[in-house]
Amino acid sequence: MTTVAVQSMADRLGFARSSSGSCVCVGLDPDLSKMPVNDVFEFNRAIIDATQDLVAAFKPQFAFYEAMGRAGFDALEKTIRHIRDVAPHAFVVADAKRGDIGNTAEAYAKAMFEFWGADAVTVYAYQGSDSVLPFLEYGDHGVFVVCRTSNPSSVEVQDIVDERTGDMVYEALAKRMIGLSDSGNVGLVVGATFPRELASLRTLFPESPFLIPGVGAQGGDAAETARLGAENILINSSRGIIYASQSASDFDEAARRAVEDLRGEIALGRR
Amino acid sequence: MTTVAVQSMADRLGFARSSSGSCVCVGLDPDLSKMPVNDVFEFNRAIIDATQDLVAAFKPQFAFYEAMGRAGFDALEKTIRHIRDVAPHAFVVADAKRGDIGNTAEAYAKAMFEFWGADAVTVYAYQGSDSVLPFLEYGDHGVFVVCRTSNPSSVEVQDIVDERTGDMVYEALAKRMIGLSDSGNVGLVVGATFPRELASLRTLFPESPFLIPGVGAQGGDAAETARLGAENILINSSRGIIYASQSASDFDEAARRAVEDLRGEIALGRR
Repeated sequence: MTTVAVQSMADRLGFARSSSGSCVCVGLDPDLSKMPVNDVFEFNRAIIDATQDLVAAFKPQFAFYEAMGRAGFDALEKTIRHIRDVAPHAFVVADAKRGDIGNTAEAYAKAMFEFWGADAVTVYAYQGSDSVLPFLEYGDHGVFVVCRTSNPSSVEVQDIVDERTGDMVYEALAKRMIGLSDSGNVGLVVGATFPRELASLRTLFPESPFLIPGVGAQGGDAAETARLGAENILINSSRGIIYASQSASDFDEAARRAVEDLRGEIALGRR
Repeated sequence: MTTVAVQSMADRLGFARSSSGSCVCVGLDPDLSKMPVNDVFEFNRAIIDATQDLVAAFKPQFAFYEAMGRAGFDALEKTIRHIRDVAPHAFVVADAKRGDIGNTAEAYAKAMFEFWGADAVTVYAYQGSDSVLPFLEYGDHGVFVVCRTSNPSSVEVQDIVDERTGDMVYEALAKRMIGLSDSGNVGLVVGATFPRELASLRTLFPESPFLIPGVGAQGGDAAETARLGAENILINSSRGIIYASQSASDFDEAARRAVEDLRGEIALGRR
């Protein structure tokens, strides 16, 4: 008789990283104006096949699929199935940035974890803990709460300083959200373009999973990100990998080389 | 030769209200555990047919459709088409609470306005103006930014007081977001369970569209909401209307009566 320990999101992320020797997450953001082939699933399949042994995770950005209607729905379904077929070690993050409360949040959790079969989902918690708790009912699945983002206008809300505690909104949010799970099922989205904030969040939450977009095209430095983010991270790159070449003859090989380059930069930060 | 003025979201909402003599919005939140019939589209069709002449708007809650996978996708598509067929006056709010930035937010706007054909969409602006501006590229469509919500944990983020201005986060957000449109294409989601905040937001923004959930099952008072919200509002009720009866023989008639009752309460607040 064997006893199976219930795993947490953090455990499963650790397995994905150790299996691949990598913390790279490939963002699957199909944009017909940039893709060298027309079929979204064929494009994704080529990228996945070319990179899967070098990466810990894939992150489909739901917006791009939703914009294509039914065709996008079908392509996303086939893409996630293909990842499960060829890369059983890989972690799948649904970058859907869902948020709501009560039975509506339960329905989003069902959509993301049961229908789409993702391991984790990005969520907004502007409505507080009520938006996150329903996702935590799935023991070994998790959420990455959007916390400190890379975009210019992120400061409008995230940098407001709480007169009572002196924390900025994103810090107050992080403290509240990380506190909801003692098993590593709540992580944070922290943009790579704010290294000081990344360092301070890592100090506050040494064990929590961070999903870090914003390296490459968006300006974040991968080596510094890896150094400051330390162990429990996924460093995401989308455009820098999948559109490394926009030629149909070599976009998959170029994607592989871009992942190798990113791994090299990350290794520099780890030394 | 006729000149067609470009309409704003506020204009179109005004038309929907004056055509129906109503500011009621019916939330289409199909929940298989509560529905007296099994087919989501047939359920929605019966509710729409029974209520459309008495209401200004319909608001499908996307989470419930997404949780059903492909069947939900199909039911939502048929539902919106049916609203357009039988209720040309009605305004359609996609309650999808989307949010992202840049070309990702553009993709969500395309999904909501072009694929789904909604007139407006609910959005989160935790990432600031960058999350809203792409939706405003569609001249006569608009957004309702989630601002002050009815749920208990809303205070965790929304009530943080800005040490610089003394505004709470939801007030700071409202000021920033309303300022993005001078043509009435930005509205706010303001829960009915916080009447004082509703009154203060109306004083700050006398002309802006407010989408107000939280009456009925969630505890908000419809008469008071109508009095404080004044003219440019949609008062949403979901469960209180669509599950007024859970019997297959009369759920549509019960929904119509529930709308009539809600209209009566609203009229009391208007006196």
